[in-house]
Amino acid sequence: MLSLDDVRDAATRLEGVAHRTPVLTSTTLDDLAGARVFLKAENFQRVGAFKFRGAYNVISRLSAAELERGVVAWSSGNHAQAVALAARMLGAPATIVMPSDAPESKVAATRGYGAEVSFYDRYTGDREALGRTLAEERGLTIIPPYEHYGIMAGQGTAALELLDEVGELDELRVPVGGGGLIAGSATAAKGLYPDIRMLGVEPEAGNDTQLSLAAGERVQIEVPRTIADGQGSEIPGELTFGINRRLVDGIDLVTDDEIVQAMAFAFDRLKITLEPSGATALASTMFRGPQKPGRRVGVILSGGNVGLARFRELTAPRD
Amino acid sequence: MLSLDDVRDAATRLEGVAHRTPVLTSTTLDDLAGARVFLKAENFQRVGAFKFRGAYNVISRLSAAELERGVVAWSSGNHAQAVALAARMLGAPATIVMPSDAPESKVAATRGYGAEVSFYDRYTGDREALGRTLAEERGLTIIPPYEHYGIMAGQGTAALELLDEVGELDELRVPVGGGGLIAGSATAAKGLYPDIRMLGVEPEAGNDTQLSLAAGERVQIEVPRTIADGQGSEIPGELTFGINRRLVDGIDLVTDDEIVQAMAFAFDRLKITLEPSGATALASTMFRGPQKPGRRVGVILSGGNVGLARFRELTAPRD
Repeated sequence: MLSLDDVRDAATRLEGVAHRTPVLTSTTLDDLAGARVFLKAENFQRVGAFKFRGAYNVISRLSAAELERGVVAWSSGNHAQAVALAARMLGAPATIVMPSDAPESKVAATRGYGAEVSFYDRYTGDREALGRTLAEERGLTIIPPYEHYGIMAGQGTAALELLDEVGELDELRVPVGGGGLIAGSATAAKGLYPDIRMLGVEPEAGNDTQLSLAAGERVQIEVPRTIADGQGSEIPGELTFGINRRLVDGIDLVTDDEIVQAMAFAFDRLKITLEPSGATALASTMFRGPQKPGRRVGVILSGGNVGLARFRELTAPRD
Repeated sequence: MLSLDDVRDAATRLEGVAHRTPVLTSTTLDDLAGARVFLKAENFQRVGAFKFRGAYNVISRLSAAELERGVVAWSSGNHAQAVALAARMLGAPATIVMPSDAPESKVAATRGYGAEVSFYDRYTGDREALGRTLAEERGLTIIPPYEHYGIMAGQGTAALELLDEVGELDELRVPVGGGGLIAGSATAAKGLYPDIRMLGVEPEAGNDTQLSLAAGERVQIEVPRTIADGQGSEIPGELTFGINRRLVDGIDLVTDDEIVQAMAFAFDRLKITLEPSGATALASTMFRGPQKPGRRVGVILSGGNVGLARFRELTAPRD
């Protein structure tokens, strides 16, 4: 499984490699939440999101021969750039499978980190099949976005750093997509402080983990329609859910409108850029905070890769 | 005059009171500038701008009797909120003179810090006359935005912190309005490293300090038309210019379009919010960096109080 020591070991590997991101506070936010809130700002992480932590942790454990053959991942999001950058830093060639209609900016960013981009047709192709074929033909190691204990251990270092900096917390709020960030974070947090309350945050339309926790088994949902594109999973991971069913105490759901309000608050008051998924745990804290002023709440702001044009679209005034 | 020791003394007063703001770096920016760039992020300062440093330094030196009578300032910008917050923290009543048509958000923010707002009519009134009358009638101490050595010493702590954190720099780029921030910064920087190049940055339309440095005396210009509303001075301060004529090595002018591009870069790549004046030294570094890759350049990002609606206006795509 996964232990606090695995997260600590990942932290050692990431030292001096990943950014130790700042912890932000805001008295206005404290008033809204009715609590003392500590924000772990992973939008300042390399590639603009926590994903770098897990990717680097896994790739740094590969053998010299595996590094030489290279790695492959399929993603059009932050995981793609995380794998590309981590591979380059470790001297491994990276191949990223992306849809042929992926935004030019994402393709360019991934290539900018030195990765080769392999395209598939979103309507007729199967990216996982293409990725697995490439892996087999070229001997590449597959780097999954969350279904891997090394990925989860890496992501958990965000929570470990937060707790190391601010000390014990009563509660930790973490965005949930496939479940890797919260699995690693919960392992670290409950390993240090068994009584900490782990609250996952999902977009209202993408509540696969909430339903799965209620059912006691993994539940599949329709492809979620939400602006939180980093949390569009249809079913929790098998490995991540195995951890999360034990360690996650509850799920809060946030609406797209609440997410946009949290992004605007982050821009105006915190002076930072958050992508929709990066703002879900903040939204949860703003709109459904504990309202117990002595309580100490940690919040993971998971990423900031929204892009100005998309941010303008999302924050356009509506009648 | 003003010495490095004055800035150090201000730093002692500000310890644990002002935020020690982070220093950000970006390899993309380094490539654009052809230099190693260190960004001092004063958008994360209390009230969202460096102005808090000077206001607190001056108010903290008042006598118990002066504090009890209170302070007064005239400003509709960051100085207003800086004085309001610093006064509240020190237990002094604050009166801020603002135009009666000032944006409700600024009035509310200033009142939110506990200040009394006195309105004047922008077209028929004289804010300075009103402020001086209030000062005389009620025995209030006037807190000027830059014409005061205590203000300059406080602002200079931003540069002092930056140099303390990153060590010697070849160059420091600082936004110039009335000249208080750069006067304090240059005093600190040249006090520590006499060979450092101090480059002021003004909006193209608001080049009163550039013209004054060229003429060897203070030159008055028309009210500048620029989006950089924190740098709309028509003439340098007498005290600030006395320092800047000795310590400032040059002025770079940035256009409004360059400022907007720097704000967009800050949003997309640095993941931070900058107001137009807060982005001028960044714009200068992006568009006219040293292009000497070994060079170490400090840049002060002076504030982040732009507001989402205004940011959307400024970054709207144009044909």
